[in-house]
Amino acid sequence: MKYFTQFESRELGQELIDLALLYKNQPRLDQAKGQGKRVGCIFLNPSLRTRVSTQIAAQNLGMEAIVLNMDKEGWALEMKEGAIMNKGTVEHIKDAAGVLGSYFDILAIRAFPSLSNREEDINDFVFGQFVKYSGIPVVSLESAIRHPLQSLADQITIQEFSKGKKKPKVVLTWAPHIKAIPHAVANSFAEWTLGMGHDLTITHPEGYELDERFTAGASIEYNQEKALKDADFVYVKNWSAFNDYGKILSTDSSWMLTEKHLKSSPEAKVMHCLPVRRNLELSDEMLDGNRSLVQKQAENRIYAAQAVLSKILG
Amino acid sequence: MKYFTQFESRELGQELIDLALLYKNQPRLDQAKGQGKRVGCIFLNPSLRTRVSTQIAAQNLGMEAIVLNMDKEGWALEMKEGAIMNKGTVEHIKDAAGVLGSYFDILAIRAFPSLSNREEDINDFVFGQFVKYSGIPVVSLESAIRHPLQSLADQITIQEFSKGKKKPKVVLTWAPHIKAIPHAVANSFAEWTLGMGHDLTITHPEGYELDERFTAGASIEYNQEKALKDADFVYVKNWSAFNDYGKILSTDSSWMLTEKHLKSSPEAKVMHCLPVRRNLELSDEMLDGNRSLVQKQAENRIYAAQAVLSKILG
Amino acid sequence: MKYFTQFESRELGQELIDLALLYKNQPRLDQAKGQGKRVGCIFLNPSLRTRVSTQIAAQNLGMEAIVLNMDKEGWALEMKEGAIMNKGTVEHIKDAAGVLGSYFDILAIRAFPSLSNREEDINDFVFGQFVKYSGIPVVSLESAIRHPLQSLADQITIQEFSKGKKKPKVVLTWAPHIKAIPHAVANSFAEWTLGMGHDLTITHPEGYELDERFTAGASIEYNQEKALKDADFVYVKNWSAFNDYGKILSTDSSWMLTEKHLKSSPEAKVMHCLPVRRNLELSDEMLDGNRSLVQKQAENRIYAAQAVLSKILG
Repeated sequence: MKYFTQFESRELGQELIDLALLYKNQPRLDQAKGQGKRVGCIFLNPSLRTRVSTQIAAQNLGMEAIVLNMDKEGWALEMKEGAIMNKGTVEHIKDAAGVLGSYFDILAIRAFPSLSNREEDINDFVFGQFVKYSGIPVVSLESAIRHPLQSLADQITIQEFSKGKKKPKVVLTWAPHIKAIPHAVANSFAEWTLGMGHDLTITHPEGYELDERFTAGASIEYNQEKALKDADFVYVKNWSAFNDYGKILSTDSSWMLTEKHLKSSPEAKVMHCLPVRRNLELSDEMLDGNRSLVQKQAENRIYAAQAVLSKILG
Repeated sequence: MKYFTQFESRELGQELIDLALLYKNQPRLDQAKGQGKRVGCIFLNPSLRTRVSTQIAAQNLGMEAIVLNMDKEGWALEMKEGAIMNKGTVEHIKDAAGVLGSYFDILAIRAFPSLSNREEDINDFVFGQFVKYSGIPVVSLESAIRHPLQSLADQITIQEFSKGKKKPKVVLTWAPHIKAIPHAVANSFAEWTLGMGHDLTITHPEGYELDERFTAGASIEYNQEKALKDADFVYVKNWSAFNDYGKILSTDSSWMLTEKHLKSSPEAKVMHCLPVRRNLELSDEMLDGNRSLVQKQAENRIYAAQAVLSKILG
Repeated sequence: MKYFTQFESRELGQELIDLALLYKNQPRLDQAKGQGKRVGCIFLNPSLRTRVSTQIAAQNLGMEAIVLNMDKEGWALEMKEGAIMNKGTVEHIKDAAGVLGSYFDILAIRAFPSLSNREEDINDFVFGQFVKYSGIPVVSLESAIRHPLQSLADQITIQEFSKGKKKPKVVLTWAPHIKAIPHAVANSFAEWTLGMGHDLTITHPEGYELDERFTAGASIEYNQEKALKDADFVYVKNWSAFNDYGKILSTDSSWMLTEKHLKSSPEAKVMHCLPVRRNLELSDEMLDGNRSLVQKQAENRIYAAQAVLSKILG
């Protein structure tokens, strides 16, 4: 495995889940594997879980992790091919990525979308430039359109709480928010949930349809109450409109998940990738109650990253 | 020991001082003790000594330290219980602290006061939220009302320079400043100096009385000249008013300590926690002269932190 | 060796180049040498290559590297002797440097010039204050007037690509830029290239003469075409005026190096320290073509830093 940027196959997905759960029991099992290897963690955007869990995963494997907050510590990056750099950008992505490729064994990169340039975002342009020019294995720490380490952690969590159910009913429900939020988590969650063979229903107000590249195979249901019925797992997430790109079409607070919404799904566990805006996306009673798996998901971020780094080390 | 947030007892204080002095002689003595353990150093405010000394202390014990400048690298934190998060804050302290608690063995946290919300500050609200929700041992790297690692380092330094005197005369003197400064260092210094059984006099202009929770047992003397007479140690520090909360009541430069102020205290050593505003709080002649212990105090920050981390590791 | 701040002698230069090339082949050869030693990497300005390559160099030697972005994470520093600190600065360089000197075995420091105070810059005032007050070995990560680790990496690269030529023709050519850029890279490159016994021609528009302390012994040629003839290495770099200090006197785009400029120098390799503004300083065709050594130079930064740290460790 050279790149970890998206869902590849159910077999590989299951292998990574199993390896992650092994590491969860024995974090230092492969302490010797990464000796003398280095991962560069490059952030173009803020991070808490992703940064720390990746550093810990690397340390658990005996690797050295170096974090670079490129947005704050480094130079403003130019992304366009052929640009005449006589404005604000100081270094071209080609040059920076090439150098980083010569410094590290693996690069892990976070590059959010602009939400203003649809074409660039849906082609995952910025992240792709790093992949293209670094010449070494690359792990996505969330790109414009995917957040695969989050989704792997989510699938680990689903497996842990499925009580042996082979095909749990999973519902991805849109939640209100005050800001225009990227699609990466929702896209990847759909991609992985479908890829792992689960039953996925996506519910959201009309107009919030996600990119079909990620959702083909899921049931789309505009009626949230119907969608939630008999759910085993409810994944709560806001995203901005995809068709009317980056727009906020609704802030309807009735979509915020509360206990009342789950009266027809007594077994439902509630998931969110964090950070979560309490009492806007999800109520306190949900997050602090027994249904919540959000802290479990966050903890599994370590072992998801560890499994991926381990697999790339080979 | 699970928390290191305040003075506990003279016995524990002495044990930590002795352990710190042992590590000062043999920094890597307990290199094996922290193997495989991780401390997360969370900063909501700037730092130099505290950050670096804690990282070094952890490394000396074989621990891995991960620094997170939450104010710059992470997400804006919501502190209020039950908040409807539809404004600027992105993540609730409960969720962040819970996640960090699952990532680390020990958390070390810096959270300055607002100086605008007295009630919140005196209850050490922000720091307390981390303690409450992380579920793991927590070390204060300076909270709204205390800076116990600084105070431990100060007590180590006092012991080193007491020449066998059992009950040295210690004077805490207010100094002028142009900004409203927190009470944490002054509070903790009083708490530890009294707790360790020393003779403490506090001197400041009227109106600058500190919170009696920390100063009960000290002599309060408004006449600086009287207070300084025959002092063994003079601790110089500015703080804003406590009663008229967060206000600057005086910038009287005659309170700035100079050699002239110490003509009746020939043996006095001069202390300050740093950073110090030269020629505002303390004159160059003081800081650069033989009386100054400020560099010794700063160096002892490493061993104070190392003793505390070691004691928590058990 | 206690300080690495400038070119010292051809013998030491060659020794460092040879050691760097040894480490390039066997990065972990001296893994035991730095055990228990610490280097503090202090940045007053942004960095990518310098920061990461120094961290990696330290790790290769078994050292612990701690990075402190003083401009962002620490306290605003006062530089002036005797300053009355009643304005924006929070800590005096003397106090900060003294503390850092007690925390680390080696300090590595980046301190760019202001380009507004010529006197201070040419005396390398800020960097000099760190050297003066830290009391421990100091490595320059670029000061107001020199960037010796870059120059060592450049000399390593020149040796690698000289094909046995004893005295290659090296040309340092000024390039256009839209910002006022420091002289450090150009100064150091001249100092090292001359010091290592190469044939150096410097070409730039009139008015861009560099400080003669660094260029004495080089040919100065205002006609770029003449200067470039039969060059073996062409080092491209912008700098602001030195005599009319910090000014931009020309943005003449004909000075931007392209393939056309090298028609009389078929063997010429092209160098730049990065970050480079593409199609302003250097054309895409140059940077992406076979002549370019820029990625090699960047990679050699690791081994330059490793040789220097190793030599200081002794």
